[in-house]
Amino acid sequence: MTDAPASHSWRSVREEVLRRIAHEDWRPGDAIPNEADLAAELGCARATVNRALRSLSDDGLLERRRKGGTRIARHPVGKATVRIPIIRMEIEERGALYGYRLLDRRMERAPDALRPRFGPPGEGDLLHVIAVHLADGRPYALENRWIVPETVPDALDQSFEDLAANEWLVRHLPLTRAQSEFFAINATDRETAALGAAAGEALIVHRRMTWLAERPITLVEMTFAKGHTLRT
Amino acid sequence: MTDAPASHSWRSVREEVLRRIAHEDWRPGDAIPNEADLAAELGCARATVNRALRSLSDDGLLERRRKGGTRIARHPVGKATVRIPIIRMEIEERGALYGYRLLDRRMERAPDALRPRFGPPGEGDLLHVIAVHLADGRPYALENRWIVPETVPDALDQSFEDLAANEWLVRHLPLTRAQSEFFAINATDRETAALGAAAGEALIVHRRMTWLAERPITLVEMTFAKGHTLRT
Repeated sequence: MTDAPASHSWRSVREEVLRRIAHEDWRPGDAIPNEADLAAELGCARATVNRALRSLSDDGLLERRRKGGTRIARHPVGKATVRIPIIRMEIEERGALYGYRLLDRRMERAPDALRPRFGPPGEGDLLHVIAVHLADGRPYALENRWIVPETVPDALDQSFEDLAANEWLVRHLPLTRAQSEFFAINATDRETAALGAAAGEALIVHRRMTWLAERPITLVEMTFAKGHTLRT
Repeated sequence: MTDAPASHSWRSVREEVLRRIAHEDWRPGDAIPNEADLAAELGCARATVNRALRSLSDDGLLERRRKGGTRIARHPVGKATVRIPIIRMEIEERGALYGYRLLDRRMERAPDALRPRFGPPGEGDLLHVIAVHLADGRPYALENRWIVPETVPDALDQSFEDLAANEWLVRHLPLTRAQSEFFAINATDRETAALGAAAGEALIVHRRMTWLAERPITLVEMTFAKGHTLRT
């Protein structure tokens, strides 16, 4: 292996690949250039590229095939066990008509209770999106989402007025880790307004955080309307 | 393959193996007799025994090794992905002192809303066990469980006064399928009494059903005390 300068260490090549994924230069399913071409483009040794791609492949982010070269993985989480559900499809699979309404979209800091979960990027403003998903015109779930612009800069170009952040993220970005929490809340003003819940009604919340390599992508709280059951 | 009489079809041999597992003649991890010995004992062809064991192995209930023969699987669900948590261990892992209190144990029919889930065994009386798990003396979870005696006859000999049905079942019986549901309830009198919840407080419920081959083992609702978060 050549002793590449710091700017061309395998870690910097890895960072460059992650940057291209985050910017959607390379999207899930895309073939990426071969090692020799990448090495030439980045001006580093082929062994350095190889080391970087191996590391990303170990994370499940790249699929390396003997023939057909290397591709960005479509569903890299846990090597294809966990998939993030798209709420629209969940509703349509129940035979209901899907509806969607954006309630709010702004840059702001995450609340104190959640901020530490994002690590250093949580110290800056995050993209905060609130929307409601409807089934046959009735509220189905309230999506309260924080997106990390450092990891997903392209999210800043999305209005999320017609396409939910839930669906946009699943379709545009691979992920390497997901963590889920389930808990119950008594409906407050926000849930009575957005979900048509009675004050104090017990609602189930699915809080999920996802990562691309070690970078936080998003934290979302999906609060479901009264009587909803989550199944595994 | 010999044309064995109906009482010695491979299905009846399969049933006999399941019966021995249910009666704990053979427990998870135990080696079972070899095919020749089983065939001699049951008075049927060795090929019939082989067919039955293959079927149980396909279900993940038996582990067949080239050396060391055939054993009852320890954690056959989904071939070792899902494990049923033991609440006592969960509490102790949090560094808290575990406590347990049996509230009720009786034979009765399952309520209408749940009965169909058990299939034909649900038409008879089931063993209904209600208990509370404590962490540092404070209510942690309310266990409301229905056990199917046809599948787990030995449960009838258990008082569940000192050992929770949760732990007894995990330790004594393998299972081949588990299904989970999560939902929220407003605390009723039962939860205020058993969990110290305020009336109407939102609580999360984990409802889980398990099967041994196609036979229902148990359905349990674990209702957790206020503010509990379930993680995956």
